[in-house]
Amino acid sequence: MITLASDFGTPYPAAMKGVILSRTDAQLVDIAHDLPRQEPRAAAFWLRETIPYFPPAVHLAVVDPGVGTGRRAIAIRVGDHALVGPDNGLLRPVVRRLADQNGGNPLTEAYEITVDDPASTTFHGRDVFAPAAAEIHEQGVDRLDDLDMLSPIDLDSCVDLQFPTPTRDGETIRGEVLVVDDFGNVITNVPSAELSGVERAVVNDVVAPVVDTFDRVDAGDRLLTIGSHGYVECDVNQGRGDEAFGLAAGDDIELVFGGAD
Amino acid sequence: MITLASDFGTPYPAAMKGVILSRTDAQLVDIAHDLPRQEPRAAAFWLRETIPYFPPAVHLAVVDPGVGTGRRAIAIRVGDHALVGPDNGLLRPVVRRLADQNGGNPLTEAYEITVDDPASTTFHGRDVFAPAAAEIHEQGVDRLDDLDMLSPIDLDSCVDLQFPTPTRDGETIRGEVLVVDDFGNVITNVPSAELSGVERAVVNDVVAPVVDTFDRVDAGDRLLTIGSHGYVECDVNQGRGDEAFGLAAGDDIELVFGGAD
Amino acid sequence: MITLASDFGTPYPAAMKGVILSRTDAQLVDIAHDLPRQEPRAAAFWLRETIPYFPPAVHLAVVDPGVGTGRRAIAIRVGDHALVGPDNGLLRPVVRRLADQNGGNPLTEAYEITVDDPASTTFHGRDVFAPAAAEIHEQGVDRLDDLDMLSPIDLDSCVDLQFPTPTRDGETIRGEVLVVDDFGNVITNVPSAELSGVERAVVNDVVAPVVDTFDRVDAGDRLLTIGSHGYVECDVNQGRGDEAFGLAAGDDIELVFGGAD
Repeated sequence: MITLASDFGTPYPAAMKGVILSRTDAQLVDIAHDLPRQEPRAAAFWLRETIPYFPPAVHLAVVDPGVGTGRRAIAIRVGDHALVGPDNGLLRPVVRRLADQNGGNPLTEAYEITVDDPASTTFHGRDVFAPAAAEIHEQGVDRLDDLDMLSPIDLDSCVDLQFPTPTRDGETIRGEVLVVDDFGNVITNVPSAELSGVERAVVNDVVAPVVDTFDRVDAGDRLLTIGSHGYVECDVNQGRGDEAFGLAAGDDIELVFGGAD
Repeated sequence: MITLASDFGTPYPAAMKGVILSRTDAQLVDIAHDLPRQEPRAAAFWLRETIPYFPPAVHLAVVDPGVGTGRRAIAIRVGDHALVGPDNGLLRPVVRRLADQNGGNPLTEAYEITVDDPASTTFHGRDVFAPAAAEIHEQGVDRLDDLDMLSPIDLDSCVDLQFPTPTRDGETIRGEVLVVDDFGNVITNVPSAELSGVERAVVNDVVAPVVDTFDRVDAGDRLLTIGSHGYVECDVNQGRGDEAFGLAAGDDIELVFGGAD
Repeated sequence: MITLASDFGTPYPAAMKGVILSRTDAQLVDIAHDLPRQEPRAAAFWLRETIPYFPPAVHLAVVDPGVGTGRRAIAIRVGDHALVGPDNGLLRPVVRRLADQNGGNPLTEAYEITVDDPASTTFHGRDVFAPAAAEIHEQGVDRLDDLDMLSPIDLDSCVDLQFPTPTRDGETIRGEVLVVDDFGNVITNVPSAELSGVERAVVNDVVAPVVDTFDRVDAGDRLLTIGSHGYVECDVNQGRGDEAFGLAAGDDIELVFGGAD
């Protein structure tokens, strides 16, 4: 199985699929091809929240504003999974999550990918990452040392990318919006446990009740809830949280417990 | 084979696919993940118009404004097919269509799905419906009584959802717009037979010829035709029918035969 | 393997997939279903740039403004590939590319597809092309003469569609915009070799440097580069080339080497 994720829109992912299927017989599963464009950080969030649900597979992920520059192409093995993509931090959060799932200490090895004379300087998804994912799938994740196109490197030498941890001072939490999803739900970096027992809170001067399901408020009303990722979300029942709260990806938030009705 | 349909946009369906493929080895086929958002009625139309073309399979469908409330999660077996989704009427029209295809009386059985302590209250697609679809696929549609997560219920106890039948008074038909498709084609609930022999009609004061193919009128001109679903559609050759006729999903229509040129 | 490409948006492709999978057991791979709507010429470009990366397969492609008119439905065999679609030129550029890949002279045969009494006059993707693709897949590309639904025709009798060749007069090249991609990159018909050794050029009075990767210019700045298709592209680093150059698909361009800084 090979999963594919990118910000390539359409129809570029089809060329990657053709390259892969010309080299190996694999079930292909799309994660998404409209990941936040040229934004490895937001894309890394979505990879971390989707890939760990999959059985062992090769995961190809390309959000790569540095394509054609000196940035390395890398592959990382984590237990029975292998990830392939640019060395810009995109793969690091999901690598940590996969390691945690496997007891925190599975075999983790990093490699630089080298492709002689790729056909383009702008479409490494097709010319570098797709061939690498196909060869890794064909070879088997436990025999990557045998692949000529892979050279072992130190994982610590790879670009890292961390999501910020919120700070708490009494009943005030300072955090950040990680991403806004298709529904307009504002996903923050505040872990669900922080809101345990809280009935109401103020986010950047906007007050909303803390509820467990959307229908606890009327259609069009704001709410705070624990989203499916385990973080506090700023949402609207049958509406868009990003508009109602005035929040976008990357924005700082100040969340204060309580607030007038 | 498992088909997937939802209003989840992207990349949430990927988490469902990971959950399924972690539990069963199935060919996955997407119906659509941009079904009309939080509108089970319009979504039910599209399920009815696509799923019956498939060979026997498990069909996962989630358009679920009541997620996290008391609404049940259900599975319905119809002959060799099984459908999995929320108990809000979404599955009923396609169940009837599949039953009709099988001579009107295939084995039809309904079940409530119970998942202990799902990981989220807002993403039952991932935490309830995907595991259920996977277990049903793994078990086989003819042995659902053996699954611990399924409890037999009366199909008649499930929420129903019917598309309205138009009324006819001489040369006037009163009906409704069921959905508008991506092309802007306005799909009504008026069966094709009603327009047999009619050359021209007026829809809500807008006159248009009744033709069998779009190119019978000039580019940009309105037309009425029998769409691929067997219903009268209000269309524009190389344009958008919804804009030209001023119609949207759910609108009432009055269609009168004839009308000046 | 069967690949699918269309301008059908969603969820119509699902009906095609159901029809196919009811008739043959194939791996399905989407090329794209948002090909330029009702524009066979632009769609033909994308087919030519994606399908040749695939291993031998049946390729279903439908961008078909003439559906329901007298235009023929055709299948073309090229070596181990088979293509299925309307006879409007859509398939010809990719047929030539596949022939070139196979040494310029693989076995190439054309057929008219005949389906008795298709269920609709407007959705031949579901009612004509999908059954044909399925039967061809089931039969095997090398035994198409045995299929009742196929009648041999002369490939030269099929509608052709050519991309224009640019003209060059000294340091001035007159060409055309073939397509604009999802990123806003303007893909011209000027082959990469024309810009060899050129450092700067003026496109329709807009000057830009010729560079090999986007990051050679600042974010938001214009550039000319060799795109992944082997043609000159008018792009913007982290922006939209179509807006910055004022160009759209089909526009004429005049590219002059040099230009003030």
